[in-house]
Amino acid sequence: MTLEIAVEMLDDLARGAAFLGTGGGGDPHIGRLYTQEAVRRHGPPRIVALEDVGDDMFVASVAGFGAPTVQMEKLIRGDEVEFTFRRLERHLGRNIDAILPAEIGGSNSMLPLMLGARLGLPVIDADGMGRAFPELQMNSLSIHGMRATPLVVADEHLNSAVIEAGDDRSAEQLTRALAIQMGLRVFIAGFPGTGRQVKQAAIGGTLSVALGIGRAIARGRREGSPVASLLDYLSTTEHFHHARLLFDGKITDLERNTAAGFSVGTCSLESLEGNDSRASIVFQNENLVVRVDGRMRAIVPDLICIIDRETAEPIPTQALKYGQRVAVIGLSAPAKMRTRAALDCFGPEAFRLPESFVPIERIAENA
Amino acid sequence: MTLEIAVEMLDDLARGAAFLGTGGGGDPHIGRLYTQEAVRRHGPPRIVALEDVGDDMFVASVAGFGAPTVQMEKLIRGDEVEFTFRRLERHLGRNIDAILPAEIGGSNSMLPLMLGARLGLPVIDADGMGRAFPELQMNSLSIHGMRATPLVVADEHLNSAVIEAGDDRSAEQLTRALAIQMGLRVFIAGFPGTGRQVKQAAIGGTLSVALGIGRAIARGRREGSPVASLLDYLSTTEHFHHARLLFDGKITDLERNTAAGFSVGTCSLESLEGNDSRASIVFQNENLVVRVDGRMRAIVPDLICIIDRETAEPIPTQALKYGQRVAVIGLSAPAKMRTRAALDCFGPEAFRLPESFVPIERIAENA
Repeated sequence: MTLEIAVEMLDDLARGAAFLGTGGGGDPHIGRLYTQEAVRRHGPPRIVALEDVGDDMFVASVAGFGAPTVQMEKLIRGDEVEFTFRRLERHLGRNIDAILPAEIGGSNSMLPLMLGARLGLPVIDADGMGRAFPELQMNSLSIHGMRATPLVVADEHLNSAVIEAGDDRSAEQLTRALAIQMGLRVFIAGFPGTGRQVKQAAIGGTLSVALGIGRAIARGRREGSPVASLLDYLSTTEHFHHARLLFDGKITDLERNTAAGFSVGTCSLESLEGNDSRASIVFQNENLVVRVDGRMRAIVPDLICIIDRETAEPIPTQALKYGQRVAVIGLSAPAKMRTRAALDCFGPEAFRLPESFVPIERIAENA
Repeated sequence: MTLEIAVEMLDDLARGAAFLGTGGGGDPHIGRLYTQEAVRRHGPPRIVALEDVGDDMFVASVAGFGAPTVQMEKLIRGDEVEFTFRRLERHLGRNIDAILPAEIGGSNSMLPLMLGARLGLPVIDADGMGRAFPELQMNSLSIHGMRATPLVVADEHLNSAVIEAGDDRSAEQLTRALAIQMGLRVFIAGFPGTGRQVKQAAIGGTLSVALGIGRAIARGRREGSPVASLLDYLSTTEHFHHARLLFDGKITDLERNTAAGFSVGTCSLESLEGNDSRASIVFQNENLVVRVDGRMRAIVPDLICIIDRETAEPIPTQALKYGQRVAVIGLSAPAKMRTRAALDCFGPEAFRLPESFVPIERIAENA
């Protein structure tokens, strides 16, 4: 089954990507605008299923990097993204055959489609994490033998740097330093690898899943039960089939600070059923852990998504508000995102949470 | 007349380079140690006069970049400098035929000699400014048609980036951001160009001058008049022949702050002759302006050097102390460093000084 992209689908796709952003990842609806424009002008990019990527194809990723709030204030022209990508090709001394989305959650779902349309290059139906994460090294590709570097960092003025670092955490630090100097609105191109490597390391089918999520929400809205429709759809997916409604309530308190460039805080909820049940969600750009009446119900790298309880509209961290009535959905992370090495890199400890990782389906069994 | 380098000369050369550092540029005596080691092991590098550089030779610079105080705490291995230089070659896709010192003032006088010895590459008897300056774009090469970029930035762990920027001021900002992230102890390789370009843009003969200064001080010490010996020698040089003793006194006050990574402040002096004459020197790493009894006597880019009045030992900004008895020497900057474009880039206004540039020899005439 091969996904075909059309302009009309981008709205659903963006909504699904926002859901997979688990509160972070930047607003994909801005990205939808320039992607629609690129698809109208150049035609849609060809989408290739991960299993159909040739072993010897040469693949790389392109993404936005920086603060989501700055990103929303500036529109993307397209040529700066193309420049970033071409500079990686120039550095590598070879053409890149296909674009792998680095991050399906949030705005970085859209950039590869825009670039694929502009350049006539195929985009792989997969990504590097099946969600959003705040740092460069936090992804499945780096965990499974690929490297972020050589990595191009470029700004809208086409100032650029090609980073090579001993490890992807160091690459993150250098990229972050450049991004801050460049005004927190930069583009990166990196994660070069062969089709063979990408098939081992990437999370397959996530473009399709994002679209499926958006469609399930739209269908649910027509039928009057968007949250149920969403949960039904998720249970049919390979990666996210452990999907649970973890809490249904209203926001009673919100602590939110910006620290070291991240949006950090806690969202407190109270049940609507009058049973005095309470929940809290800790976030750092993305939602990290949800606790209900003091018991952990889901924790990173499993996905925790806050949506409007009536419309199932995904609510990013920065749009959380006192009094909002929301549903909290937990999803199992893909298996590649739950290995020992993965948990060392982006499990609870990496975010200084006191809990250890327990898969959401095991927590549910024990509940 | 071709300069030949021997281990025994490096002490004089370092002292001359410290003098041309005009208070900044980092301590060349640390650099002397690893350069001596490299020369002992590999033999001295061949020194080529600027006028003898072939038009089609391909030339680049290598330098340390960061805070002088951090630099002094860590010794250089050599392989990190070689790595930085080789990465530039790899980026350019060609071999570099000769090394041009970027900055003769301070520690960056030594690094090219060390690398030249290690790699068996000639070092050009010239540099990019005839002094020291705090920022990347502040040099004669950038003023006369060359560019700092592509510029490699690397740390001791061999993390690196190749910067390409719209202008050298932007390159400075990106390099600075990386240097701070890398711990303010980094190496750069850049300013690639042909022999033809370098002959137009570089300041010739400055390695020889640095050595000459050191030798004049040593000779003066043997003869009991190091300051006079130094002034005599400078008057014979092409670039610095307007050399004046501007003040002779003791330090009565010292205001020194670290701001945005620079050592910024004012040094106040009082005459030793009991005539109530007073001087002040404003510095930002390097000495920028000297005023005697309220009248400007020399100003950047002309060179202002503070030396011990008995031994003529150059005193860097960070070693200035209350009660020190010093001589303040002013030197004319090379003509290439005084053009309109040069003054726009690193004249008084670039350092937010209220005065306009007046050549030291014109101030002296009017005195």
